[in-house]
Amino acid sequence: MKLLPPKGMRDFDAETLRKRHYIIQTIKNILEGFAFEPLETPAMEYSEVLTGKYGEEGEQLLFRVLDNGDYEAAAAALAPALNGASLKRFLHAHCEKALRYDLTIPLARFVAANYHRLSFPYRRYQIQPVWRGDRPQKGRYREFYQCDADIIGSDALMNEVELLSVYDAAGTALGIPEFHILINSRKILNALLELMGEQARAHLIISIIDKIDKMGAEKVLGDLEMLLGDARKMEVLRAFFAIQGTNEVQLAQLKSLFKDSILGQEGVAELAYIVSFFGARFRHIPQIRLTLARGLDYYTGMIVEVTTTAVSMGSLGGGGRYADLGRVFGLKERLSGVGISFGIDRIYEVMDQLDLFPTGNFYTEILLVHMGSELEKNIFAYAQDLREKGLRCMLYPTPEKMGKQIKYAEKKRIPFVAFLGAQEQSKGQVLVKCLDKGLQKIILQSELCAATLTNFQGQ
Amino acid sequence: MKLLPPKGMRDFDAETLRKRHYIIQTIKNILEGFAFEPLETPAMEYSEVLTGKYGEEGEQLLFRVLDNGDYEAAAAALAPALNGASLKRFLHAHCEKALRYDLTIPLARFVAANYHRLSFPYRRYQIQPVWRGDRPQKGRYREFYQCDADIIGSDALMNEVELLSVYDAAGTALGIPEFHILINSRKILNALLELMGEQARAHLIISIIDKIDKMGAEKVLGDLEMLLGDARKMEVLRAFFAIQGTNEVQLAQLKSLFKDSILGQEGVAELAYIVSFFGARFRHIPQIRLTLARGLDYYTGMIVEVTTTAVSMGSLGGGGRYADLGRVFGLKERLSGVGISFGIDRIYEVMDQLDLFPTGNFYTEILLVHMGSELEKNIFAYAQDLREKGLRCMLYPTPEKMGKQIKYAEKKRIPFVAFLGAQEQSKGQVLVKCLDKGLQKIILQSELCAATLTNFQGQ
Repeated sequence: MKLLPPKGMRDFDAETLRKRHYIIQTIKNILEGFAFEPLETPAMEYSEVLTGKYGEEGEQLLFRVLDNGDYEAAAAALAPALNGASLKRFLHAHCEKALRYDLTIPLARFVAANYHRLSFPYRRYQIQPVWRGDRPQKGRYREFYQCDADIIGSDALMNEVELLSVYDAAGTALGIPEFHILINSRKILNALLELMGEQARAHLIISIIDKIDKMGAEKVLGDLEMLLGDARKMEVLRAFFAIQGTNEVQLAQLKSLFKDSILGQEGVAELAYIVSFFGARFRHIPQIRLTLARGLDYYTGMIVEVTTTAVSMGSLGGGGRYADLGRVFGLKERLSGVGISFGIDRIYEVMDQLDLFPTGNFYTEILLVHMGSELEKNIFAYAQDLREKGLRCMLYPTPEKMGKQIKYAEKKRIPFVAFLGAQEQSKGQVLVKCLDKGLQKIILQSELCAATLTNFQGQ
Repeated sequence: MKLLPPKGMRDFDAETLRKRHYIIQTIKNILEGFAFEPLETPAMEYSEVLTGKYGEEGEQLLFRVLDNGDYEAAAAALAPALNGASLKRFLHAHCEKALRYDLTIPLARFVAANYHRLSFPYRRYQIQPVWRGDRPQKGRYREFYQCDADIIGSDALMNEVELLSVYDAAGTALGIPEFHILINSRKILNALLELMGEQARAHLIISIIDKIDKMGAEKVLGDLEMLLGDARKMEVLRAFFAIQGTNEVQLAQLKSLFKDSILGQEGVAELAYIVSFFGARFRHIPQIRLTLARGLDYYTGMIVEVTTTAVSMGSLGGGGRYADLGRVFGLKERLSGVGISFGIDRIYEVMDQLDLFPTGNFYTEILLVHMGSELEKNIFAYAQDLREKGLRCMLYPTPEKMGKQIKYAEKKRIPFVAFLGAQEQSKGQVLVKCLDKGLQKIILQSELCAATLTNFQGQ
């Protein structure tokens, strides 16, 4: 009998969940502060909603859900020409539904279905698991949470500014050190391709540039040289890659490089406008990083990625501006949007490695020791008192040996245990022991509250 | 193109989600106060984990997930004897995984897999969606959340007491009127069957008694008379059903009815012990309801159901004691448990019908009107100030006509709008308008905070 979760999927125990919830709650609070509203969509979508959206490679990774059906009729239909191809077609046709692959297509479907009911700009966040039948490997799962925030139906660059502020606030609230917000513009990259006369191979070239963080600049330039085989084009490319320095310096150099490109000027003006909002009050000022490409096809304006240089982890999130969200579901009205996402698993990894999770407030705070059945009613009543004061507490359910009860508290990482023996009860007192420090003291029952415990721990 | 969620599944928009999250967060806080720790398991389990657990009827409702496989080989294997039965067998065999059907089997699987790592008693709660291919109808969905809390590995009745206290606290915190906690004991019901000499048909008779809330006592007694056809048995049954009154009165009568039954005495003593903990401090004292049966086979001790008589809705949750959780996954150690669940959808329905959700604090609190591009940097900075004070606020992204911006706030149910025109900005002031009341006033920018808005709304 298999007792483990399916390959690439995970059970989350209490300790992991408390940390995950801390990340999710922190991000959620920030997004709600920025007036994003929640959305949740079902785990399953009709297969036709998902097919044709993720490319051939993505489509292979869809988890399809089998219909319960009329097997006799199905067998009869299948019989005449049974082979691998017909069976595959048959099986896919008998999977009316498939599991959510990302949060973007469900958002587009929801917006198209509710277009006349929604008010635009529509700012939504969505934090739900998605499923992909990828080969599992370290850090890559078949079930994982995505956390997306998008603003739909507004072309204003103010939306980009607000989303970058969200990243700034999240980096600060989570306390991630060496947190960087890197931005670029697809308009600038496209202007570069224009300048090289390489618009036709835009997708290929951008996908090569996108590897620069993994492969290094030299390798990528080498690959591009092989591909382009043209000294003039490589010169343009090298000039572009050579642009470095502060945002102001880079913008000035870009302005001159693209002096004859309308698209280039537009991209430069947009980035200049965006960064102009980020002054001294921000902990993380977006930095222009011209080698940032982002793999996805559909970005059309600003693109963004957040990283930390404190550990080696790849990007912790990213996003950008896209031209039209509704078209894929037949919406006539053009709905431009801009969105960002947070990589919950990677943020978790970084915070865990750097020990950034708050230690207090995560666990059950106090265990009330069971002192025998004559005393248990009073101890139970006292547990209720403590809960009403907001303490998380557990009453051990049976009068086991003290040692066993204390060992249980230690294993569960419950920091305090309380003893209400006959003597303490008669005086309205309680003996509180801090397991970490081995300290104990007797206080009035009415005195015990979160503050008492904090003070105690501080001693 | 289908734009709706699959049949029986739902998109949850912001308003619904805020209310759902309110319920879930309230219950979660209570459970954590009672030292329950969270657990999450994957949406999919290996099919073999789920099959054979839910009876034939339940098994029909499993959503099976299709493997991506070698279709040529599969077709060849299928070809020799293709018919309805072989196709069904084939399809199920090619669905290595299926979707979570409840939270109990994944809990049992998790406990069996982690037996040596866990400390018992293990108190966990789990709030996750489950999927059942049931025929959708009003109030019955194919995707819905379950919220379970269980205590595993302890026979102590104190666990029952604590779980009933959780129900009491949840009823109070959610503010559900006429909230009742009804309890009974399978030991008492089994003693009754013993008294009637009907142990062999226990399952059938209990399932008939279970319908008493839906059908009424007369109909159920009629059905039982038809089934039993025995005057003496009916007499016992009527005597049992006639027991009513306070817990004390019922316990006294039960004690006399079951004076010769060891099992009956045990059940009576257990209920007496449990209710002895619930004194005046409890808002909802568990009431013994002898007709409460609960359909499920596996309960062995106390059973519980919570309801409200304020609206007609059926039970809002239920649970009970079960003898052994681990055996189904081959665990040698016996792990008794007791658990309760909350019906999130029904609680939502009750609270929505009775208008019990708190109105404030759910939405974006204030919209900053965009007053033109020369002013926007300062307005953006002010939005950041307000967010740092903990206000949820939105800056309208473009300088649309005031009327349009205000209409947007109204549609989004944002209660306040703020104007920072050139004049206000020069004086460090802001004009705040309460849309509900049509009131407006000019205050210092630094004065604006949650308390100002609350006062304003109170005027």
